[in-house]
Amino acid sequence: MSSTAGQVIRCKAAVAWEAGKPLVIEEVEVAPPQKMEVRLKILYTALCHTDVYFWEAKGQNPVFPRILGHEAGGIVESVGEGVTELTPGDHVLPVFTGECKECAHCKSQESNMCDLLRINTDRGTMIHDGKSRFSINGKPIYHFVGTSTFSEYTVVHEGCIAKINPLAPLDKVCVLSCGISTGFGATVNVAKPTKGSTVAVFGLGAVGLAAAEGARVSGASRIIGVDLNSNRFDQAKKFGVTEFVNPKDYNKPVQEVIADMTNGGVDRSIECTGNVDAMISAFECVHDGWGVAVLVGVPHKDAVFKTHPMNFLSERTLKGTFFGNYKPRSDIPSVVEKYMNKELELDKFITHQVSFSEINKAFEYMLKGESIRCVIKMEE
Amino acid sequence: MSSTAGQVIRCKAAVAWEAGKPLVIEEVEVAPPQKMEVRLKILYTALCHTDVYFWEAKGQNPVFPRILGHEAGGIVESVGEGVTELTPGDHVLPVFTGECKECAHCKSQESNMCDLLRINTDRGTMIHDGKSRFSINGKPIYHFVGTSTFSEYTVVHEGCIAKINPLAPLDKVCVLSCGISTGFGATVNVAKPTKGSTVAVFGLGAVGLAAAEGARVSGASRIIGVDLNSNRFDQAKKFGVTEFVNPKDYNKPVQEVIADMTNGGVDRSIECTGNVDAMISAFECVHDGWGVAVLVGVPHKDAVFKTHPMNFLSERTLKGTFFGNYKPRSDIPSVVEKYMNKELELDKFITHQVSFSEINKAFEYMLKGESIRCVIKMEE
Ligand SMILES: NC(=O)c1ccc[n+]([C@@H]2O[C@H](COP(=O)([O-])OP(=O)(O)OC[C@H]3O[C@@H](n4cnc5c(N)ncnc54)[C@H](O)[C@@H]3O)[C@@H](O)[C@H]2O)c1
Ligand SMILES: NC(=O)c1ccc[n+]([C@@H]2O[C@H](COP(=O)([O-])OP(=O)(O)OC[C@H]3O[C@@H](n4cnc5c(N)ncnc54)[C@H](O)[C@@H]3O)[C@@H](O)[C@H]2O)c1
Ligand SMILES: [Zn+2]
Ligand SMILES: [Zn+2]
Ligand SMILES: [Zn+2]
Ligand SMILES: [Zn+2]
Repeated sequence: MSSTAGQVIRCKAAVAWEAGKPLVIEEVEVAPPQKMEVRLKILYTALCHTDVYFWEAKGQNPVFPRILGHEAGGIVESVGEGVTELTPGDHVLPVFTGECKECAHCKSQESNMCDLLRINTDRGTMIHDGKSRFSINGKPIYHFVGTSTFSEYTVVHEGCIAKINPLAPLDKVCVLSCGISTGFGATVNVAKPTKGSTVAVFGLGAVGLAAAEGARVSGASRIIGVDLNSNRFDQAKKFGVTEFVNPKDYNKPVQEVIADMTNGGVDRSIECTGNVDAMISAFECVHDGWGVAVLVGVPHKDAVFKTHPMNFLSERTLKGTFFGNYKPRSDIPSVVEKYMNKELELDKFITHQVSFSEINKAFEYMLKGESIRCVIKMEE
Repeated sequence: MSSTAGQVIRCKAAVAWEAGKPLVIEEVEVAPPQKMEVRLKILYTALCHTDVYFWEAKGQNPVFPRILGHEAGGIVESVGEGVTELTPGDHVLPVFTGECKECAHCKSQESNMCDLLRINTDRGTMIHDGKSRFSINGKPIYHFVGTSTFSEYTVVHEGCIAKINPLAPLDKVCVLSCGISTGFGATVNVAKPTKGSTVAVFGLGAVGLAAAEGARVSGASRIIGVDLNSNRFDQAKKFGVTEFVNPKDYNKPVQEVIADMTNGGVDRSIECTGNVDAMISAFECVHDGWGVAVLVGVPHKDAVFKTHPMNFLSERTLKGTFFGNYKPRSDIPSVVEKYMNKELELDKFITHQVSFSEINKAFEYMLKGESIRCVIKMEE
């Protein structure tokens, strides 16, 4: 039992008071974990586009004041009633989506979209009692996707916590909480390219580069990177991308450019842009007979996917994935092991590191497109 | 060597002289098989919608005079140069699409869309020399999809012929040449429902009923039949369909009706209508997390498949299939064995039988929607 168990913890957190305004490091009170909840000491957290997106809060319900953050590594400080799989001192990654192990999705071998703990970006409270565990002078500060890792301590549902190898360096494996697992899993769990196959990756941000890393690890013979921003190409070479296509350089659809490059189409494609035109191109650029396309990017709410049905009938497959089809508790520990075995490379994703007090710099690096991942160190 | 080998054979064939006009039984000359070709004596042939479609020739290039027919069973009469896998006397099913065993598709374990012998509905001649093997008084009569089985003798490329168990009754297994294998394979090879799963079948024509038969053989616990024509429902009970939905009976989209019936969606759906709205519903009615939808119907050339990309991202899969993903030479003999082992039921598909001289009656039964399959017996 740690000396803080059962007590309110006062600690520092970066609070988003208003949409688009710099975060402010505040002293917050973190209540003890309730039923099925765990309080974590966060050691490292990374910044993902999704944090920036909900911080900007353009076109969504603004939920403020809020503690953002969802890619992180930490240590269990104390556990609430009913928590059986975690104890203080465990090394963990909190995850924005959970695994209750009871619902139809958790029981299915194919799905990771837990009915109870599936991501909910609108909810700013804990599911147990609909209340926040964070407060300043008695006023609640809202949670974000059940993780709120921009705080020295946070409270997370047990179902959203992966217990990992305590030897794994948290400053590196923290990036496996979201984007990198999403892209890597999209390739290795869903697209499943065989050795020697050709793979196209649409969008060369962190998620797309992780998808390319999945293709490299799978032994793809050609990895074609597609992005509207040619500045992304140089960096992508480190991730095993062998050829580059900027759709703006051609006066025909990029799916035709890729078909010409590959004698009819690639074996697999993975879309990591969120743009519906890229989704359509990613589907139509796979080879007939056996091609598989996987959608990862989160589309605009009014987007419409359109294609001629003959593109399906000529034996193409289209699938989407959420968090790379990984179940957070069951599967993420083994992804950490892949890093420990040097099968999966993570260091190249981490282009920047800042201290907690400099957290707004992480936002700047991302907004300027300079960083893939910026890791924030909680202890000065 | 048969006495007719190397000779022109004079025999009866049902010739379509003009779009939509009754076929006329004529005496035709059938030239000997050329390189890689085989001449077959047809014993039984069935009528499929595709024959009717190209006979009506609405909205396509009319190719007349032509000998239609592509579901059949026969016996090898003689073989041309280079044919190694067939000899006179072999029992066979000609197939409208082929398997050269050399191209990338034939070498892929996943595809059956042979580059050389893929269905071509516009071509009315043999690929070896671009000429027809049928003539009347020296004037060519065109072929249809490489099979032209509405003739006592026909010439087919070796790659489009499945050699089957000689004990199999050709008057029954002839229907495995096209529609029944298409629907059955769509379920067992592509949708692959597991035992106890829920399956929706859109369209209860011959292809959809064969898809339902695949679901029954796979041990599906519920098979939901969807058709705009409620007259199809009674017959479908014989094919293991347990529940029926006519979209016209509801004032909400049929995908919502099915989701309500199945706690969120079916595990698998198979679309066998050719209607793009049914394709969209078949996709959107599968459960998130694990649902797989398979498209079989041939759409209108201007059809557009539209859906919100989130339907993919919530882990649904959409695939299309051609001829149930069967490779004609490699796989169809084993489907015949399934019938021989009483695993697959075929007799219930054959609702009518007529003699060759009555072939136009088979068209009437189909146009009136009375038949599933009408088998035509070539010898009076
Ligand atoms: N499904 C999940 O579980 C999950 C998890 C995390 C992120 N995501 C999504 O993955 C996507 C990528 O995330 P990211 O962090 O790598 O984003 P990012 O913005 O860093 O990268 C996206 C890249 O796509 C490129 N792009 C945009 N439109 C394009 C087009 N039409 N053609 C080619 N390239 C195009 C951009 O230039 C950019 O380089 C986002 O939509 C994000 O929401 C999904
Ligand atoms: N992919 C292949 O290899 C292959 C092979 C043979 C046939 N086909 C195709 O399969 C399809 C079915 O063939 P069939 O011979 O069984 O046809 P059919 O006309 O006998 O049956 C189709 C059924 O679909 C129903 N239907 C039409 N629109 C519908 C809708 N919106 N919702 C629900 N039901 C609807 C009709 O009422 C009819 O009962 C056709 O499109 C045919 O071209 C494909
Ligand atoms: Zn669950
Ligand atoms: Zn993220
Ligand atoms: Zn081939
Ligand atoms: Zn047919």
